Amino acid sequence: MIEFRPHPDRALPASEPARTVARRLYEHTVGLPLLCMHGHVDVEVFVQNQPFENPAELLVVPDHYVTRMLVSAGVAPEELGLARLDGRPAEQDGRAIWRRLCENWPLFRGTPSRYWLEHELAELFGIEVRLAPDTADFTYDRIVGQLVAPEFRPLALLDRFGIELLATTDPATADLAHHTQLRGLFGADRIIPTFRPDALVHLDQSGWRDRVALLGELTDTDTASYEGFLAAIRLRRQAFVAAGALATDHGELSADTTPMPDEAASEVYATGISAGLRAEDAHAFAAHMLFQMARMSCEDGLVMQLHTGVLRSHDRSWTQQYGPDTGFDIPVAAEYTRSLRPLLESFGHDPRFRLVLFTVDETTYSRELAPIAGAYPAVRLGAPWWFLDSPGGMRRFREAAMETAGFYNTSGFVDDTRALLSIAARHDLARRIDAGYLATLVVEHRLDEDEAADTAADLAYRIPKQLYSRCGIQ
Amino acid sequence: MIEFRPHPDRALPASEPARTVARRLYEHTVGLPLLCMHGHVDVEVFVQNQPFENPAELLVVPDHYVTRMLVSAGVAPEELGLARLDGRPAEQDGRAIWRRLCENWPLFRGTPSRYWLEHELAELFGIEVRLAPDTADFTYDRIVGQLVAPEFRPLALLDRFGIELLATTDPATADLAHHTQLRGLFGADRIIPTFRPDALVHLDQSGWRDRVALLGELTDTDTASYEGFLAAIRLRRQAFVAAGALATDHGELSADTTPMPDEAASEVYATGISAGLRAEDAHAFAAHMLFQMARMSCEDGLVMQLHTGVLRSHDRSWTQQYGPDTGFDIPVAAEYTRSLRPLLESFGHDPRFRLVLFTVDETTYSRELAPIAGAYPAVRLGAPWWFLDSPGGMRRFREAAMETAGFYNTSGFVDDTRALLSIAARHDLARRIDAGYLATLVVEHRLDEDEAADTAADLAYRIPKQLYSRCGIQ
Amino acid sequence: MIEFRPHPDRALPASEPARTVARRLYEHTVGLPLLCMHGHVDVEVFVQNQPFENPAELLVVPDHYVTRMLVSAGVAPEELGLARLDGRPAEQDGRAIWRRLCENWPLFRGTPSRYWLEHELAELFGIEVRLAPDTADFTYDRIVGQLVAPEFRPLALLDRFGIELLATTDPATADLAHHTQLRGLFGADRIIPTFRPDALVHLDQSGWRDRVALLGELTDTDTASYEGFLAAIRLRRQAFVAAGALATDHGELSADTTPMPDEAASEVYATGISAGLRAEDAHAFAAHMLFQMARMSCEDGLVMQLHTGVLRSHDRSWTQQYGPDTGFDIPVAAEYTRSLRPLLESFGHDPRFRLVLFTVDETTYSRELAPIAGAYPAVRLGAPWWFLDSPGGMRRFREAAMETAGFYNTSGFVDDTRALLSIAARHDLARRIDAGYLATLVVEHRLDEDEAADTAADLAYRIPKQLYSRCGIQ
Repeated sequence: MIEFRPHPDRALPASEPARTVARRLYEHTVGLPLLCMHGHVDVEVFVQNQPFENPAELLVVPDHYVTRMLVSAGVAPEELGLARLDGRPAEQDGRAIWRRLCENWPLFRGTPSRYWLEHELAELFGIEVRLAPDTADFTYDRIVGQLVAPEFRPLALLDRFGIELLATTDPATADLAHHTQLRGLFGADRIIPTFRPDALVHLDQSGWRDRVALLGELTDTDTASYEGFLAAIRLRRQAFVAAGALATDHGELSADTTPMPDEAASEVYATGISAGLRAEDAHAFAAHMLFQMARMSCEDGLVMQLHTGVLRSHDRSWTQQYGPDTGFDIPVAAEYTRSLRPLLESFGHDPRFRLVLFTVDETTYSRELAPIAGAYPAVRLGAPWWFLDSPGGMRRFREAAMETAGFYNTSGFVDDTRALLSIAARHDLARRIDAGYLATLVVEHRLDEDEAADTAADLAYRIPKQLYSRCGIQ
Repeated sequence: MIEFRPHPDRALPASEPARTVARRLYEHTVGLPLLCMHGHVDVEVFVQNQPFENPAELLVVPDHYVTRMLVSAGVAPEELGLARLDGRPAEQDGRAIWRRLCENWPLFRGTPSRYWLEHELAELFGIEVRLAPDTADFTYDRIVGQLVAPEFRPLALLDRFGIELLATTDPATADLAHHTQLRGLFGADRIIPTFRPDALVHLDQSGWRDRVALLGELTDTDTASYEGFLAAIRLRRQAFVAAGALATDHGELSADTTPMPDEAASEVYATGISAGLRAEDAHAFAAHMLFQMARMSCEDGLVMQLHTGVLRSHDRSWTQQYGPDTGFDIPVAAEYTRSLRPLLESFGHDPRFRLVLFTVDETTYSRELAPIAGAYPAVRLGAPWWFLDSPGGMRRFREAAMETAGFYNTSGFVDDTRALLSIAARHDLARRIDAGYLATLVVEHRLDEDEAADTAADLAYRIPKQLYSRCGIQ
Repeated sequence: MIEFRPHPDRALPASEPARTVARRLYEHTVGLPLLCMHGHVDVEVFVQNQPFENPAELLVVPDHYVTRMLVSAGVAPEELGLARLDGRPAEQDGRAIWRRLCENWPLFRGTPSRYWLEHELAELFGIEVRLAPDTADFTYDRIVGQLVAPEFRPLALLDRFGIELLATTDPATADLAHHTQLRGLFGADRIIPTFRPDALVHLDQSGWRDRVALLGELTDTDTASYEGFLAAIRLRRQAFVAAGALATDHGELSADTTPMPDEAASEVYATGISAGLRAEDAHAFAAHMLFQMARMSCEDGLVMQLHTGVLRSHDRSWTQQYGPDTGFDIPVAAEYTRSLRPLLESFGHDPRFRLVLFTVDETTYSRELAPIAGAYPAVRLGAPWWFLDSPGGMRRFREAAMETAGFYNTSGFVDDTRALLSIAARHDLARRIDAGYLATLVVEHRLDEDEAADTAADLAYRIPKQLYSRCGIQ
């Protein structure tokens, strides 16, 4: 067994004097609460508040960062417990799955998955050995032994991590009962929903008609017409607001926001309801709806979050076998300047509006997103997303975007994860990287240390706190 | 009041031993004169040679880097003294505007605007406190008190900054009287015009017909025909040459240089003169004219500068209210390889031709611009432009482009500014960044220090001096 | 004469403590054999095994990295010995050509060409002075004096460099006699061919019909039909396998892999054979053939290497005068996510398939290639190619791609050179850069040093060794 203990200075700058300054800046942020303003933990996890079963169920099977890397090296998905949709059996033995991770641990060298897992193993489970075949059973047993303890229940983790607020991401047709239930529990907003209408705005996606029918039922509105559809969406947004929501979230391949004339939108919608919609009309309608959502955000104060540029289910046969969100989503080149123009010309100066832009095409940081965020009052540049949520990715984000956008046109860190156990590790890493970037500015005499410390705390806490309030509304 | 004094080592590498080497290299360049081969200071400023009024008029209102950042944080443009075109009143009180900058100073943390302003405040005005609400009045008064002194007049600043040559940017229809007048003053070329024909080549822009009519008058040429138009442009270029011009400048959305057959160009031109031009014909004509301009540069030896890839007036309603060049120009993805091919195949090896390429899409540095500049004798890679003219932007430029293009296929620094007072700060920063990059090569044993020192001086002075001579002509 | 001696720490990180760690990691790789799995040394060089003539013939004339840089500074190609296709005389005097390089040595400051040349001059020829006009004759004579020695013959260099295996790149219609002959010489595979079918798949390229006729002859197959064409290609691949080939190589402008229905392919092929093919059909057919080649790789186990995104012969008039591959090939923006989807959906999980992706558009590292390589088992991310094969380029590659792809989804270094003498220098530089990247991970406490040392050796030797075996076949 090889010993391993995460170093207190990990992920800080490689050289002095920046490291020492960074350590001091980081210390300023360690005690700050976590604001988890965008993520994918299922609200039911908190309602059930059951202990996690074993390390495989907790750390391997549901984490597509981890499974895709193992699959890329030739490990069969079934051996990782990835259930096939056709019911063909997959590995059920958590110990065997965990062993596969341990055997392939070298694949994760230099990746953020490894970094987060090491943090979790050490900080949460007190495990101070390196994962390897000879530590697979030891670490498995050690984790299993602890997971039954009350402090590893989901709600207990909120306290342990210092999570002040956690936003889930929920379909627009979610009934929000769980959120309401949890609200009673805390006596205040701590776990809040986020309104995600993607499944309603792509008229050509399978199951769309059923979903708008459900939308109609939930809102007691006739969604057979475009007007009814818009009205129902407004009502659903109100329901989310009532359940504590602070934001909407939109995942689209393209950032196109070109509106259509009402009549044309109405017509396309009607065709979607009946039949035979052309793909280009469906795309145009989705773009049109982004525009409408911005308008509605002006009305109800929900922050609009936009995630674009990922071609989902790149391998369609894989998706048919293992389902979506299992590692085969691949980014494409993104465009924002022309795409967002209609939306920004209409709402970019509206004091009631906040738009947070996320990308996985880092070429757009300096070219498009920082100039846009550095001009339009409504726009904030979102934290590095998905593949870019890594030590190097977060550094490049600061380097590429801050000189043009400034720190205060950003969103603060978002963990964007379905892995509850990794949330503290992710925020901690982001705070280290930001401390490192700020320290370099200090060491290059471009910022005084007191200002850097103030900025570090702003990035970690004050900026998201202020951004995700329903400004101009409350 | 918090003390602040720019550090002598600012913007040099964060770690040793590179910093010490960089300091030595930088020292080699400190005394070199400034060549300001591309910028936007209005020639009238020098002709009038009046004292600047106050720090707001000098450093805030006309600097769209500064105002856009304040606007992006929700400050109303009127509060910054941005005059509305409809005449609605804006803040007139310089002290109030200056205070708004001071109050919002944290927004500029890590930005080049802050860096330049700090340099100017300290080096020019001897101000050694940080901008903040509690220093707003003090600094305002301190600056106002000094601006009346003769050494703050525009012409005096030329000497103070060690500016050997400053090129303004002038419409092709400028009468050049001011330049001629200044020529007499210095007895030599010190403030020279640059020929910018953009307003003449976009046949579909409002006011175009008036401008070609003016062009006709100025040149005593019938510009009703395409042939007359070309002849008139040639005459204007000659007039610029006679006034000391060394270069032309072309700002285009696209770098397309596809020529049209003479007949087609003639026809499109005629349609432009009469009416009803299609947008695609207008674009094609603009591309065609870039090709023609390259040909003319071969004839008259003017260096051709090409700035592409910015979508001007992204927010058209803002532009209608506050005019162009006020912070709402946003870059788009750029393409050079295919776009420049027609021009380069025709003129890229012509010993009389020099083409300097500027971009705000830094992805093109390593992919397109460095390979092009590293092959065609006529091409030079321009200095980092606009949003990229920052410590990080300039470093990334060197890192991405030098290994392929080499130092000697670049243009030397251009300040590209309308802020006269910032010129010395900008050149100084560029020299520091270049010293840092060269120092890293030295420390990595990829370059000897004597060669690095020689290169530093070449970048700062000798390269632009040699590039912007009318080679092969004089 | 100025002394110059490559420093033992060259190209290692600029600062401590990373440098010291990097030095130790680098030491782990110094003794490892070289696997040269993709390159362009002509097999005949080894068959003839003649001494090189002089430094100009060896290091200047055939190296388009070097000649393009000199041409970009205005040196006439003829003065560099670049032969014109029309027979107009070029410089024949090696000493004069070498002098031109020495005179223009400052142009190469900071470039990899300089780095490699310095390595070669010092390590191979014991030259410890800087190139300059005053060392031109001295260095020329010194090199000429040594080139006659047996240890400078091509086959001797293989031993001297520790080259275990060297793959040449050969047209699909190569007769492979030289490779067979060399096989006898070594008694084992040491110089192996690579199957490159580009010239056969572009139906609209001049000479195509002659080449498919030759293909028919070589394989005794009727290539007048599409079926015959495919059969003949399969036979040629078999012949390459029999001659020791481990891989194919495909150079295309686009990475499009969309297959056509057999009937359509057959029809397009027939039109290509007869006449009047449209350019878009030719492109579609080339994309279709990439798809077919992937299928054949599944059958015969040849690793598929794909090099895309370079617009060859950008200056067509230059190419007419001096031929292809002489410095005027310029990259364009590349796209992989959509382009490779058809191929990857069909073969990306096939255990018999290996696809290595090379790019000169580094924006695709983090956006497309690392996510693709980090998911599909068949895909490996190729080493930085061409303009990116430089200290900075290789660092940016590791920084942009490793966090997502991991080290073990890469190919290992490929020198991709026709300059035999530079092979050791290139591999050595890559090992230094990789040691530096790994050292930074160690110093940032993201990797233990024993793991970094293991990874360094994997990158240098074990990964390519394992990748370029005919997995699942032998």
